[in-house]
Parts: sequence; C-alpha cells; structure tokens
Amino acid sequence: MRFLVLLCVLSATSLFAKQSSTSQPAQSRLPWNLMPVPAKVEAGSGLWVVQQGLTISLSGGDDPRVRSAAQRFVDHLSRLTGIPLRYLTAQPDKATIAINCDRAGDKVQKLGEDESYKLDVSATGAKLSAPTALGVIHGLQTLLQLVAPGPQGFAAPAVHIEDAPRFPWRGLLLDACRHWMPIEVVKRTLDGMEAVKMNVLHFHLSENQGFRVESKKFPKLHEMGSGGHYYSRDQIRELIAYARDRGIRVMPEFDMPGHTTAWFVGYPELASAPGPYEIETKWGVFDPAMDPTKDSTYKFLDKFIKEMTELFPDEFFHLGGDEVNGKQWDANSEVQSFMKSHNIKTNEELQTYFTQRVVKIILKYNKTPVGWDEVLTPKVPKEVVVHSWRGPESEAKAVQQGNRALLSNGYYLDLAESAEQHYLNDPLGGDAAKLSPEQQKMILGGEACMWSEMVSAENVDSRIWPRAAAIAERLWSPAEVRDVDSMYARMEVVSQRLETLGLTHHSALHAMKERLAPNHFEALRTFGRTVEPVKKYSRSGTHKYTTDAPLNRLPDAVPPESIEARKFSRLVDRIVAGNASDDDLALARDTMIDWKLNYDRLSPAFQNSLLAEDATVSQNLSTAATIGLQALDMLGSRASVPTGWADQQTAQLEPMKTGQSELLLVVVAPIQRLVQAVGK
Amino acid sequence: MRFLVLLCVLSATSLFAKQSSTSQPAQSRLPWNLMPVPAKVEAGSGLWVVQQGLTISLSGGDDPRVRSAAQRFVDHLSRLTGIPLRYLTAQPDKATIAINCDRAGDKVQKLGEDESYKLDVSATGAKLSAPTALGVIHGLQTLLQLVAPGPQGFAAPAVHIEDAPRFPWRGLLLDACRHWMPIEVVKRTLDGMEAVKMNVLHFHLSENQGFRVESKKFPKLHEMGSGGHYYSRDQIRELIAYARDRGIRVMPEFDMPGHTTAWFVGYPELASAPGPYEIETKWGVFDPAMDPTKDSTYKFLDKFIKEMTELFPDEFFHLGGDEVNGKQWDANSEVQSFMKSHNIKTNEELQTYFTQRVVKIILKYNKTPVGWDEVLTPKVPKEVVVHSWRGPESEAKAVQQGNRALLSNGYYLDLAESAEQHYLNDPLGGDAAKLSPEQQKMILGGEACMWSEMVSAENVDSRIWPRAAAIAERLWSPAEVRDVDSMYARMEVVSQRLETLGLTHHSALHAMKERLAPNHFEALRTFGRTVEPVKKYSRSGTHKYTTDAPLNRLPDAVPPESIEARKFSRLVDRIVAGNASDDDLALARDTMIDWKLNYDRLSPAFQNSLLAEDATVSQNLSTAATIGLQALDMLGSRASVPTGWADQQTAQLEPMKTGQSELLLVVVAPIQRLVQAVGK
Repeated sequence: MRFLVLLCVLSATSLFAKQSSTSQPAQSRLPWNLMPVPAKVEAGSGLWVVQQGLTISLSGGDDPRVRSAAQRFVDHLSRLTGIPLRYLTAQPDKATIAINCDRAGDKVQKLGEDESYKLDVSATGAKLSAPTALGVIHGLQTLLQLVAPGPQGFAAPAVHIEDAPRFPWRGLLLDACRHWMPIEVVKRTLDGMEAVKMNVLHFHLSENQGFRVESKKFPKLHEMGSGGHYYSRDQIRELIAYARDRGIRVMPEFDMPGHTTAWFVGYPELASAPGPYEIETKWGVFDPAMDPTKDSTYKFLDKFIKEMTELFPDEFFHLGGDEVNGKQWDANSEVQSFMKSHNIKTNEELQTYFTQRVVKIILKYNKTPVGWDEVLTPKVPKEVVVHSWRGPESEAKAVQQGNRALLSNGYYLDLAESAEQHYLNDPLGGDAAKLSPEQQKMILGGEACMWSEMVSAENVDSRIWPRAAAIAERLWSPAEVRDVDSMYARMEVVSQRLETLGLTHHSALHAMKERLAPNHFEALRTFGRTVEPVKKYSRSGTHKYTTDAPLNRLPDAVPPESIEARKFSRLVDRIVAGNASDDDLALARDTMIDWKLNYDRLSPAFQNSLLAEDATVSQNLSTAATIGLQALDMLGSRASVPTGWADQQTAQLEPMKTGQSELLLVVVAPIQRLVQAVGK
Repeated sequence: MRFLVLLCVLSATSLFAKQSSTSQPAQSRLPWNLMPVPAKVEAGSGLWVVQQGLTISLSGGDDPRVRSAAQRFVDHLSRLTGIPLRYLTAQPDKATIAINCDRAGDKVQKLGEDESYKLDVSATGAKLSAPTALGVIHGLQTLLQLVAPGPQGFAAPAVHIEDAPRFPWRGLLLDACRHWMPIEVVKRTLDGMEAVKMNVLHFHLSENQGFRVESKKFPKLHEMGSGGHYYSRDQIRELIAYARDRGIRVMPEFDMPGHTTAWFVGYPELASAPGPYEIETKWGVFDPAMDPTKDSTYKFLDKFIKEMTELFPDEFFHLGGDEVNGKQWDANSEVQSFMKSHNIKTNEELQTYFTQRVVKIILKYNKTPVGWDEVLTPKVPKEVVVHSWRGPESEAKAVQQGNRALLSNGYYLDLAESAEQHYLNDPLGGDAAKLSPEQQKMILGGEACMWSEMVSAENVDSRIWPRAAAIAERLWSPAEVRDVDSMYARMEVVSQRLETLGLTHHSALHAMKERLAPNHFEALRTFGRTVEPVKKYSRSGTHKYTTDAPLNRLPDAVPPESIEARKFSRLVDRIVAGNASDDDLALARDTMIDWKLNYDRLSPAFQNSLLAEDATVSQNLSTAATIGLQALDMLGSRASVPTGWADQQTAQLEPMKTGQSELLLVVVAPIQRLVQAVGK
C-alpha cells in the first residue's frame, strides 16, 4: 500500500496547485480528498482541529433541511473521528461552524435550483453560505471530506471554496425490478448520493420482472405483478422525504409500452396479445407490449399517471419507451388494421403514436416527460427529455431537434467496466462537443445506471460504489478535471468513508467471500483481488441466470473493478519505463510471490462446489505469477534471456486473459507487459 | 490460517466421537460448528443439501413465535448461503423442514420453562420437535449452525440431536447507562444471544451516569437524568417483544440505593445529602445514595416500581444494591439518629433495612427481587436471588442461607479477559461444587456482563462477541464439555456467522482502524493482531476517561482477545514441544518476518496524533520478532548458541510485556518461550 499514499498526496497537490492562488502551505501534507473536485479552491494557512463542544449556528431563510443537514453533519463527523459530538447551537459570531442559507428552497426541489455554496475554513472553524438549502447540504459534505487525521488529530485545512455544479442533473438510476431492492438499500443509496453531490434518483419501478409500487387505482398491479415485493405508498413518500432532505429529487420511471409483462399479470387487457401472463423470470427483451391502438389503454394510463404524478411530486416523469420488439403488434390483426387505417407504416411510427398520446397525458398533469432514446423520432414532442442509452449520438440529435437530453450511455454500472471508462465519458463529448453553447445548455447532465439483472440487494452497493463517485465528479466538476490517477486516489478514500457511513460495498463482499471459504478467507481475498467479473452482458446473456438464481459465487463477491489490480498495473508501468524505486521492485516481487503460492493455499477451499469452478483460474494466477517473477529476475540481470523466451511466455499467458467461470484474470495483461519488456 | 482448519476438524471430530453411538461416516468431513454443544449428538449418514423451494410445515400448538422463528430461519439461511429462499409452507409429511411444537408457551416467558428440542437431519430434510416455542427457536439455530459449504454446496450432515440446557438462566447484562446504547445495538445484541441460546437480557437501566427509561410517574427521571438518551416506553415494549420472539426474557435493573446520581438530578429529595446534583461524567464509586430513613423514599419507590413492573412483564426485578460507600449516610445527622433509634449499627445493616423494604414493594407487585451480592446479609429475605459479582463464594453462601443464586463473577466482558478464562469458570465450580444436588439446583445459572465505561455503541459488539458465546456454552452445554481448543475453533466460526447475520464486531473494528490509518490499514491490522487492550480496570481506573471521552484509539479498535496471537502461541507450543510440522515452521517464520518489517511499514501512520503513542509498542514488536527469528534459526541449527544468549534476550523482552499506551504486546510471551527453548 505504500505507493498509494504517494500517489494520493502528489496528485492532490498537483491538482490543487493549479487552482490555488497561494503557495502550498504546511497543511498541504494533509490529504485533500475532495470528490467531486469543487469549481474553485484556494488554500489558506492553518488547520481547524475537530474538538468536542463544537457549535453550529444557522442564519438566514428557514428551511428544515438545513437543520437536518447540520444534525447529519454532526453525526457523520462523530463517526468519522470517533469523537462523541452533539448538536450544540451558538450565535453566528461565536459558532465553530456558521451556516447561512439565504432563503428557503422550493417546496419541490427543481431542476436547476441554485446548488452553489461558499465555504471558508480557518483555524477557528468554518463559515458556509449558500443561496438555498441545497448548497448547505453540498457544502457540509465538502467540509466532511476535508477532515482527515494528522499530527494534531482530526482536522481540516484552512481553505476558501466557491463551488457550483457543471450540470444541473446528476442522477443515478436504481432498478428495483429485476432484483428487489428493500427500502434500506434505497436509503443507503441516497446516503451515498448525498456524499458525492448527486441530485436525482431515477427510480425504475416497473418491468417484465416486477411492478414495484402500490397502486390504489389498479391494485392488481402490485398485488399480482410483484411477488409481494413492492413499496407501499407510505414507503414511497418516506423515500421521497429522505431524498429531499439530502438534496435529491426522485423521478419515477414506468417503462411502457414494452417491459410491461408484470402489468399484464393483473391487467392482460392492456397487452397486444390475450395472455394470461406470468411475471417474467428470465432476462432479455420480451414480446409483450401494451396495445397502442385501444382507447382503453389510454384511459387506464390516464388514471394511472394521475395517481402516480400525485404520489411523486417531481416535475419529471420517465415513460421508458425502450426495447419494443414489435412482435405482438405484428401478430395482432387489429393492430395491423389500425396501422393501415391511420397510415402508420412501421412499428417505430406506432410507438411514436403511443408516445405522443402518453406525453399528452403526462403534460396534462403538469409533468415533463422523459423517455429513452427510442422515443427520439421526428414527431416526438419538444417537451420530451431524451435519455440517451444506446449511444452518445442521440444526445446531440435530440438537441438539434429542439429536445433537451440526458446521457446514460457510458454510465452503465452493471456492465462491470472501470471507473476510468465512466470518468472520461463526458455528456458534452463526441457530437455534443460541436453544439453551440446555447444548445449545450439543453444537455442537462447524465445518470449512472444500476440495472439489476446481475445484482441482488446483498451486493448492489458494491456495483454502485465507489464507481458512481467517478460519474458524480464528471457531472459536477469543471470539464478540465480529468486526471485519472488523482480520481482513483481520491475515489479510494471516498469509498472507505462511504463504508464508514453505512454503505456496505466492502463489508458485503467480505462476508460473501467468508461464506465461500470460511477457513481460507485470506487466500480467497488475495485471489479475489486479481480477478474481475466478465464485462458487459456476458454474464446475464448466458440464460443461466433468472430472477431466482443465487448470486453467491466468486464473480458476485468481487468488485466490478479491482483497485489492487490497477495498482499492480501502474507498478508494472513504472518498472517497464525504468522509473521503479527499490520499494516498487520489492513490492512487485512480494506481490507475485504471494500469488504464486496462492493456489496451494486456496486449493482446499475448492472442495466447496460453489468455488470448484474457479480452480483453473487460481492455477492460472500461480502460473502467471511464476512467469512474472522470472521476468522480474531477468529484467534485473539482462544478460541471460534465452532466445524466444518472451514470445513463448507471452503466448502461454495469452489464453489466461479469456473469461473463465465468468471471471477475468486481470493481472495477466500487466505480467505480459513485464515479459515483453524482457524481450526488448 | 492452514492449521486452524485442522484444529477445527480434529477437535470437532474427537468431541463428537465421544458422544456419537455410530462410527464417523463420510459427512464428518464437514465442520461441525455447533456452539453451544448440544447435550446429545448422534451422527447419521448422508447430507441434507440446501436448495431452492425448501418448504416448512408447522404443526402442534399455535404460538406466533414459531412462525416468526421459521421466517427468521429462512432469512438467515438465505444470507448464510446466498441462495434466495422464501418461506413456503407444506404438509408435514412433504415438508423439507417439519416443525412440531407441542403447545403454546407461557404468555410471559418463565424461568425454567421447557427449552428442550429434538432435531433429526436426514438426506431429505429435517424434523424438529419441541414441547414449546423455545425449543423450536433453539433447534432452528442448531440447524443453521449445521449448514456449511461442501462438495455438494451448502449442506447439513445427517444427525440426531436431543438437547436441553444445563442451566435455566443464561443471561447477558447490557449497561445502557455509562455509554448510551441505541435501540439498534440492543436488537443486534438480542440477535446474537438467540444464535447462542442465551435467554435473559439483564438490562442495566439506571446509573450515576444516566437514567435510561421514560417514566410517566416521575418524568424528571428521564428528562433531567438522561441527557436526552433514554428509551421511550414504546421502545421498551418493542425490545421486550423482539426479545420474546427470540426466546429471551428481559429483566430490568434499577440500581439502588447507590449508583443513583442521575435520579437525583430531577429528584434531589431522594438523596441523603441536599444537592443539587448533576449527571456524573466520571467512572468509579460515588457518594450519592438514596436516603433509606425517609418514608417519602419508599413512597416514591412504590409508585416507581409499580410503573416499571407494569412496563416489564418479566417475573424478576433487579434492585442492584452494589457499591454503597456510605459516606452520605455517615455525614447526615438525621440518618445517624435514625440508625441509633432503630438500633442499626452499621451501614451494611442500614442497607439491609433498605433492601428489606424495597423487597417488600417488589413482592407486592408479584415480582421476584434480584440483588448484587452486597444484599446477602443474614437478614435478607429468602425470595431474593443473590447475584454474585465480587467473588464466587457468595453463590454457595446464598444457597446455604436458602436464597437462589446467579454467577457473574468471572464473566465480566469489560475486563478484556480471554474467552478461555470465562469458559472454564463454572457456576457449580469452587465452593458450589460441594453443595448437595438439591442445593445446586438453586444456582440458576449466570450472566455475562457488559459494563460500558470503556465501550461505546460503536465498538460494544466487539466487546460482547464472540467471547459471550463461550459463556453461553458454559451455561448451556454439559459440564464435561471443556475442551478449550475445540471451543476456540468453533467460536471463530460462530463469530464470523454472527457478523454475517448483522452483528458488527468485525466490521466496526475494521472501520475504526481504517479511520486511524487510512493509508496504512493493512500494516495497522497486522500490528493490531499482536496486541490486546490492557486488562481489568487499568484503563477506566486512570481517570483520564469520562462519559464524553472519545474511544477512538488503538486499544478501542482491537478485540479484547487476539485470536491470531493465541494461534501464534499454540504454534510456538508445538515448536517448543518438537511437534511442529514443516508448515508450522514456515508459518512461524513468515509471521515473524511480517512483524519485523511492520514498524517500517506503519511508521508514517504515527503522524496521526491518535496513533503516535503506539510507536514504541510497534517498535517493540519489530524488535521482538527479530529476536524470535534468531531463536527459530538457532533451534534449527543447535550448534552455535552463544552462552547466556537466551537469558539476555529473555531479559530484553521482559519489559515489552508491560502495558504501554493501554496496550499489551501479547506475542512477546510466546517469543520468550521460543528463546528459552534455545537455552535448553
């Protein structure tokens, strides 16, 4: 772990050196683990040391969220420091932390509502001011992140920060349908979002595999379409209040006309084929779709949308609109004759007809519709916000057509990709970069997406966190904040802190690995750090998985991205470039010795049928490490490399990079680079 | 970790071999991690493999606790296996798990109510029968413990178990006064108690440092005596229901006439000196005591006890009675003249007078009084159960005097002693061993005590668990179950499972260490495994600590007993005895090399003021490991030991065994044994 600290301090220093107008004072030794990076940071001199008896003053507009944010701040600071702190009030001029909030915020949090804040930390405490409660919420999270242990105890460096988000829409989609997400999971997710200043929970609430909200108007939706797993109306209200308290809007999505099998279990008359229907248990795109030709469909949807727009106060209402395969429409003669009589030539046009009618209903109830990029056809109403998931192009296209847009393509957390990939994906990149500044303003931001085919309530935290923090930074911080190493160093600290605050992305995977190898946990942990689950849809696409299949094997119990493997890869980069320190070389050697010995250590655990399938990958790790150690030795004494050795070894390593048992042995690629360096 | 498995399998095998009437079949390869060990276990042949679609049948008497225990079983089994399981019912002859409960239990769980059960596991499932819901609750926990991963997935071995507890009172005292314990902590504690079949929560609810229950009759008790930290009456009822569901009685303790400062903040007229009083913030024995001479005191207590006996349905009511120093009585002339006029010669006699009057009130409300062993005077009423804490003698003395008794001496979890010490402490040991069988029946059992001067809600789980499981086994299992190595091996598995079920004894300490050394966590973890907090009262006795002092340093962040240090010690035992395997020797070497290097790895973290004080102990570890490695080398090649070397090194190591910065470097003693072996 030694080289991490270095990275962390160096990158933070260089990062802030650019933005800071003063030279780096003594406190720059403290890690500055701000994530997302604020718009403007100036280092001051001195430290504010966290001590018992700290007081808080609140002034300005009266917003209950300010008081509850302050209470939460005190609680979190207490957990982060271990110092028992209580909420004690004081006059503004005497308070340790003086908070001023100009005015009470809007009753329902609005898109684009002012989220800015100014934060001044000095040796005596902090002053935080913001136009609304939103800025106070964000500023207190920044102050929490500044606190770190040091020579004087837990302290925050003196600093002046002026901060505001780059994009007004910084969302996270949570799919509570494919796998049920109990209310505690949603709350934990909202806690994490607050910590990294995300402000929209896109709540995916209906699917082929489940309808997840209690409906008073149409009770068979949740009674027959959920298998008993749904949120009551009171729970929805509770979650909305919980989110509001944390500066987060809640936008519901009721996906239609496809992805609707669960609706049809109770209401088969909505479908384009007679039924009966059962809740879907498999993954993929399915045939059932609403019948867009019947007036009764729109009568149903009018009542339903009225009920749901009353339950969800947010201005935006997501109607879905993705992945309609049209097979039920093709096969239905009434639909076909409707299309003829209305001069509708394709299923796409039929869906546009449907979208137009649903949009009208949504607008009637004073909401703004949002739809996946399939809704972007020439006739789509201008009010619709287009949500790009299939590719980034639709964003620019939507704007050029006069619609506002959101980016989720490139932010799919379920694909097990790296934080780096998500981080470098910019809503104003690609085609959008060529738009005029006025047009660019129509790109509202983006959303990380946590689709839940391959995650359960047990490990969902580990799929969202910490990678969502990288997306949060992309959406909040200035576009030029793009240093990947700095991001990783800060993300690791954020990750650890989220766990301390109650998220379970580390502890749940720990427990899952203990469950797999109760008596060989350390060896399994070592192995687990060298692998990642296979990427994209290669797991869910196998049709081996269903809604009820256990997610209790190693690919479920390791993070989507191995931070340790990434560090090893960077270490190899330094060795190959000739920049390695003695410590680097020792660390590389120790690490590979550990891997070499690991198969023997772990092999008794392969008796467990759930782990047995991983034995080959574990053997590959030991073999690869043995080759890596030889390469390291040869690099140390270049004299004696047999001809063709590097090519032979590279070839031997090559097949180990292929996914096996749904795992990728990600440390093979850097070992290959070591081997290739020997060949040069 | 390799040698642990061995220990675990061997000891479980030998343990059960004694009790088993059949030879060990194939499934004995599975670890049998039962804790507490049942009264009778017979191994069968075959395995029951946990699979989706398992069904449960309930027959016999109707007790809602049976259904909720079955539901909890399904939830826990799901968490332990990662297999999504639902509660599905079936007919008894078709069910995977057939549960029969003869009759509904008593409305309020009684002392001595039948807790027995019979459990038969076969290849097709399990049959569990019990006279009452209590046996069902216990039996389901046994079945959960039998399930372990193996070649066929998660499975339980075929087995016939007949089980019942040795003692009817198997308690845990939780002190919610010195440090406040939020309701979630109490619930977690009850979850852990259920898992190891403990059946009494002794809830210590009033103290100098806080009065923790809402009182309707005397609201100033909780309003002025709690600093805002108290349980509402509804929360108390919620906790009692939660405990009842898990087969646990809740006995309240309102300690009097001493330990009562917090009562006097609102009601100074109860005290023997005028006041005013403030909530105490320090630890120790203090002067304030109730005035036992005034009728108004008993009028108050009559109303108060009436209210509390209505709130707490349990038959037993603990009146405390410990540690009255008598100073307020000595200094109060009215008390003195009362003593004279009533022919009361000593403060002890005065306290007996008080106890007699309070006992009468408790009996009037149909409760049985319990008191700490100070109440054991010749005149104490026979109804009083004597709770021995100062020494084991009072137990036998109480019984000889005709009182029933409970043991807590030797079970104080706050003293940071080893599980072994607690485990070998028997309620029927010492003087009690000489009692007649009839008299021994008057010894009801015992209670582990979690006094909370030096624990916070954050780390309290780590002080209770896993050591309380050793006490639970002592109180449940047959007296002859005393194999210490077997106990440790099983305790480690139980400990891991408790964490999986929601206890936080591992994860909280992990987070606390990450907080201390965010960038050097692994090195701190290694160091942390070689130390223990200093024992007995040496921390709280320093007067450095108060109710508000942070408990956020290393002695708070390591377990009271290091399992890893114990394993190292056993490893050294084998080396010294000449029984070490090659693996043992390699492990000893690797371990000590790791320790030798650890100071250099950890030293940057000593910049943090909270860790700085531990630098010397960390240096000592490296020095001791260096010496230990030399000893290991010399043992391997006996030829070249310089004269006096062993004595010199032993002397150098000796001072490292002394507590420093509230830590004991517990691996020094085994290293000394290695060194001494060289000298022989």
